[in-house]
Amino acid sequence: MFNLGNFLSLSTFGESHGIAYGGIITNFPAGLHVDLDRVQHQLDRRKPGQSAIVTQRKESDTVKFLSGIFEGQTTGTPIGFLIENENQKSKDYDHIAQQYRPSHADFTYDQKFRIRDYRGGGKSSARETVNWVVAGSLAKQLLPENVEINAYVSSVGDIFCEKPYQDLDFSKIDSNDVRCPDAETAEKMISKIKEIKKEGNTIGGTITCVIKNLPIGIGEPVFGKLQAELGKAMLNINACKGFEYGSGFCGAKMTGNEHNDLFNEDFTTKTNLSGGIQGGISNGMDIYFRVAFKPVATILRPQESFDKEGNPITVEGKGRHDACVLPRAVPIVENLAAFVLADLFLINQLRKF
Amino acid sequence: MFNLGNFLSLSTFGESHGIAYGGIITNFPAGLHVDLDRVQHQLDRRKPGQSAIVTQRKESDTVKFLSGIFEGQTTGTPIGFLIENENQKSKDYDHIAQQYRPSHADFTYDQKFRIRDYRGGGKSSARETVNWVVAGSLAKQLLPENVEINAYVSSVGDIFCEKPYQDLDFSKIDSNDVRCPDAETAEKMISKIKEIKKEGNTIGGTITCVIKNLPIGIGEPVFGKLQAELGKAMLNINACKGFEYGSGFCGAKMTGNEHNDLFNEDFTTKTNLSGGIQGGISNGMDIYFRVAFKPVATILRPQESFDKEGNPITVEGKGRHDACVLPRAVPIVENLAAFVLADLFLINQLRKF
Amino acid sequence: MFNLGNFLSLSTFGESHGIAYGGIITNFPAGLHVDLDRVQHQLDRRKPGQSAIVTQRKESDTVKFLSGIFEGQTTGTPIGFLIENENQKSKDYDHIAQQYRPSHADFTYDQKFRIRDYRGGGKSSARETVNWVVAGSLAKQLLPENVEINAYVSSVGDIFCEKPYQDLDFSKIDSNDVRCPDAETAEKMISKIKEIKKEGNTIGGTITCVIKNLPIGIGEPVFGKLQAELGKAMLNINACKGFEYGSGFCGAKMTGNEHNDLFNEDFTTKTNLSGGIQGGISNGMDIYFRVAFKPVATILRPQESFDKEGNPITVEGKGRHDACVLPRAVPIVENLAAFVLADLFLINQLRKF
Amino acid sequence: MFNLGNFLSLSTFGESHGIAYGGIITNFPAGLHVDLDRVQHQLDRRKPGQSAIVTQRKESDTVKFLSGIFEGQTTGTPIGFLIENENQKSKDYDHIAQQYRPSHADFTYDQKFRIRDYRGGGKSSARETVNWVVAGSLAKQLLPENVEINAYVSSVGDIFCEKPYQDLDFSKIDSNDVRCPDAETAEKMISKIKEIKKEGNTIGGTITCVIKNLPIGIGEPVFGKLQAELGKAMLNINACKGFEYGSGFCGAKMTGNEHNDLFNEDFTTKTNLSGGIQGGISNGMDIYFRVAFKPVATILRPQESFDKEGNPITVEGKGRHDACVLPRAVPIVENLAAFVLADLFLINQLRKF
Repeated sequence: MFNLGNFLSLSTFGESHGIAYGGIITNFPAGLHVDLDRVQHQLDRRKPGQSAIVTQRKESDTVKFLSGIFEGQTTGTPIGFLIENENQKSKDYDHIAQQYRPSHADFTYDQKFRIRDYRGGGKSSARETVNWVVAGSLAKQLLPENVEINAYVSSVGDIFCEKPYQDLDFSKIDSNDVRCPDAETAEKMISKIKEIKKEGNTIGGTITCVIKNLPIGIGEPVFGKLQAELGKAMLNINACKGFEYGSGFCGAKMTGNEHNDLFNEDFTTKTNLSGGIQGGISNGMDIYFRVAFKPVATILRPQESFDKEGNPITVEGKGRHDACVLPRAVPIVENLAAFVLADLFLINQLRKF
Repeated sequence: MFNLGNFLSLSTFGESHGIAYGGIITNFPAGLHVDLDRVQHQLDRRKPGQSAIVTQRKESDTVKFLSGIFEGQTTGTPIGFLIENENQKSKDYDHIAQQYRPSHADFTYDQKFRIRDYRGGGKSSARETVNWVVAGSLAKQLLPENVEINAYVSSVGDIFCEKPYQDLDFSKIDSNDVRCPDAETAEKMISKIKEIKKEGNTIGGTITCVIKNLPIGIGEPVFGKLQAELGKAMLNINACKGFEYGSGFCGAKMTGNEHNDLFNEDFTTKTNLSGGIQGGISNGMDIYFRVAFKPVATILRPQESFDKEGNPITVEGKGRHDACVLPRAVPIVENLAAFVLADLFLINQLRKF
Repeated sequence: MFNLGNFLSLSTFGESHGIAYGGIITNFPAGLHVDLDRVQHQLDRRKPGQSAIVTQRKESDTVKFLSGIFEGQTTGTPIGFLIENENQKSKDYDHIAQQYRPSHADFTYDQKFRIRDYRGGGKSSARETVNWVVAGSLAKQLLPENVEINAYVSSVGDIFCEKPYQDLDFSKIDSNDVRCPDAETAEKMISKIKEIKKEGNTIGGTITCVIKNLPIGIGEPVFGKLQAELGKAMLNINACKGFEYGSGFCGAKMTGNEHNDLFNEDFTTKTNLSGGIQGGISNGMDIYFRVAFKPVATILRPQESFDKEGNPITVEGKGRHDACVLPRAVPIVENLAAFVLADLFLINQLRKF
Repeated sequence: MFNLGNFLSLSTFGESHGIAYGGIITNFPAGLHVDLDRVQHQLDRRKPGQSAIVTQRKESDTVKFLSGIFEGQTTGTPIGFLIENENQKSKDYDHIAQQYRPSHADFTYDQKFRIRDYRGGGKSSARETVNWVVAGSLAKQLLPENVEINAYVSSVGDIFCEKPYQDLDFSKIDSNDVRCPDAETAEKMISKIKEIKKEGNTIGGTITCVIKNLPIGIGEPVFGKLQAELGKAMLNINACKGFEYGSGFCGAKMTGNEHNDLFNEDFTTKTNLSGGIQGGISNGMDIYFRVAFKPVATILRPQESFDKEGNPITVEGKGRHDACVLPRAVPIVENLAAFVLADLFLINQLRKF
């Protein structure tokens, strides 16, 4: 309950200013030669301080595997891992303990639990996603090698990458700070983020993710539809406000005649408004989906708010926050998708007698 | 695994042309006086043949409760229920067995399972949602009485209900065939659907759902965020292509300064771009979300396709299909949401010592 | 939660005097040609009225499959089934509603739920096990054909079948009314039960179950050990008081030197005190376990008790009860074991990369 | 799947000679002031080197909590914990890698996974139970304060503690090295273990566990019966061969007339052969159960065996092994029981509307 995955399962822990983050992956098959550098590489893509447009906080985000891997191979037993928090400043958080920041989870956590670890957002911090990146990048290695999962920033504010994903060169995603493979758009996005940052403001955007070469048959017919499992995972990312796949919300404006994907002789389809999924099950075409992220709630400007007792206060973000989380969310989306796919991929192996 | 719900759990079965649909609800608390007429009423809202703009198939969709309710009260033990299929025509489906209809699940089911019940779409039929309506409308009765869940058709094709939900009178939702509470828009939508139907075509649309008076604290912090649980449920509805809540995809264009919801003294918020959820947990404001539905894949026009062996064929929908599923999807969305909320509502009761 | 099985999962419903029992099996692989006569045969072995030593109640216990099986093959989608209750007498149960029978669940159900379906024991009736027999006998067909699961009555009261299971001919299990394959012991057991019955009394006993040819590798290392999954299933049978496997409680008296099973060259073992399981995982040797059943609580003699209000009353069982449930429990044990094995067998297929 | 618990859930990792053991407890309620010294105390009761009759290995077994506890209170978010392995000798294990020790899991792990961490038994080591003790002793603090859970060694080999538990003073359990509260029996047991140890042999035994003051209503009616959840947990302990509760296997020899527990006016019962459970649900009387442990498989004597390739070898345990695990298993049984009870206790709170 409240783990990630159905058969392949991730349980996690950790708070922003606690000792460590970490997780346990259960039911990972035995005998896989795992490349832990690939895991650390994905963590590095997510970590703060990579470029001028993301937070300048420093965390090495080094993952340590504690079990379940022996002489480079998985053993089939639970994989425990740890990412120590290095950057815990022992500053005085007492004032934060009392205040409710707008559009943060301070108020809801207090109401739900009557206690919260208020240091740096505690459990509600998006730093939790380090765990997901570790698990996802390991799970990725379970999938057939030719499965490609690429996410990129497809919009920042009102700057959209207008090219369809088919016209993009995914090898360019990491070639710029904003992780949009179209150089021209990337430049605009970067300028926009810098401008917003200068204003002490933040900005939202979207990430598009494309999955190629996923075998046919992945996803379950009723409550485990592929799109639902992907959507659920994405909607658990802290700032996520929406998920659509294939034609998405645009598809809702179309007629059946326009929307139906006619087959080719080899059972590929001429169009792919379905987004590679029929009846909740992959059909061999590209799977693509789009995730909406709201702007970061912490802005470096004074905002009126209230403390626990209802006294008016002014809150003002300080220091090293992301003006735009999108570039760092790219590896989160990719690796989270990988975990979901690996879970359903395993399960699918039991579907036929 | 692949049930609906985490603690409160629904397991279902049934195929389009099988003997019956049905389900089992486990962990339903004891001692609730349940109103089974309310359950049947929700089924009636979903059933075919209600108006000129939906399918003219006739199914009484009568639910029979088989256990777990004694003298009008739940007993705390599993609730079994059954909806018999009445309309199974013993016609010859053999030709359908061989053909792959565009944008249906025929091909993916065959690939995944190597066998499918091809009669009327078998398991991939949206008739499965009768089970969800039964379970959801029962679960609704677990929630505090003042919790209101209202869904309505907010767009059909490019006809949008432009009014914000706050300006709509939800008591009018069922007053017209399309289930849009704004009479003027409803009329346009109905005309549009009739026109589309006449062409043998189908059309998509969106449903907006608004939840009022949900207690604060519902939803779990990490993998059980309220929006993720709602989104997952909705994305399992057969034609669903997208889910957004609060500001949704529009929020991705905004800045933090615009998007943050400032508090009032009583911890309500001045704006509600958050959509009533902070950190995955309800904050007492209205929860609202929007679901995108693609147009129905079965159109009454010839479409080129292929049979199992790859021979070119022409498929053509016949008979009594929905030109637009949106009106019938309204009770599905509402009751599915109710189930998700009831599940998380129960779980929340265990969150504080 | 509270289903049977981990991947292969059974959800059930039904009360003694309700309309029907039934269940849903999810994640059953597609493409299995199932023999439903074998399922009905197992139900027939369990049903009342088979012989003079069990209850003379009449129930045909006919199972009806409602979904998930198409043209004799499983489709990979949920299998729904129903066993209608035929023998519901509309007699007045009001006096039973108020009284607490000794060693029944009347009192605990009332305390837990504040309401109970008191007719015939309601949910606490062992009639629930019809569901398990259906699911188990279907699951049995998933296992390799040479897997043999045989249970037999190994003791009734203080009459023990002294022969080791290796000396018994399992084909004789159903050759007598008590289901003990040793004819001589069977006769003694039958006499004992008849005598006990005449006294209006009941008697306990044990069932031994032997599993042959289970592939090596079944069972999970930590919380899903094969013995724990089997034990849990058995301990959920209504009258079960204990479970032991291999050397069991006798093994607790032994030394390591005596107890260790030395290997043969082919990795079979010279002895099998381990009961075919090492580290929670099957090792290819016979698995055998023993289940203790208490005597049925309903006796045809007056017993002093109290009603809900604490008034002294006399309760006295009437009519058609089992003097000894053991013969009818044999198919329950066998089929329950089959379900557990099929579940772990499927899961094991995902354990190696 | 394969976690401990249903709502309250424990996920674990760790291998005998890995870096650390650890676990994550999810769904632990917020706001509990936890006493971490009590947790460490339970670990200390389990750790090696406590007395002359258990292994002389030295491990401090110090637990470190990494999350979910803030300023002494649980926060309702996942509790991560770690127990570092201190005693990893970097000796050459290569010979062990090839050999299959009798009645160990070497062979089954190799067959199941095709790879195993052979150092010190790897995942199959009973050192895993450190995790269970941590989680259980924390969970114990969730139960009403007056709930008492006491386990003690009730037999070693053929030396039995003949006194019924009612005549024992549980405060004496830790007063001797074998953890049998009857001083006279304890002495005999200790002598027996010393003698066995001198012979390089090992010996089995039983542990009895008594739970007092558990509220009425704990346990679920069908697949979550209290005895089944307890039994499953116990049967997952590495050397466990059997579980019985209440009258247990003795009850199988009795008649209904003898076995039924008649009520007193206050709904306590005159006898308690039921072991405090009716219909799977606690009835307010003492719950008591007995767990059988086989003798430790590692003996300090030469045993004939085979290596992976089937070559005959001689294996001989060396060094610091337990001649009898029973004394150290006492806190494992107690704390495992506590976890099971806490899980079902929480769930029971949702059972009534």
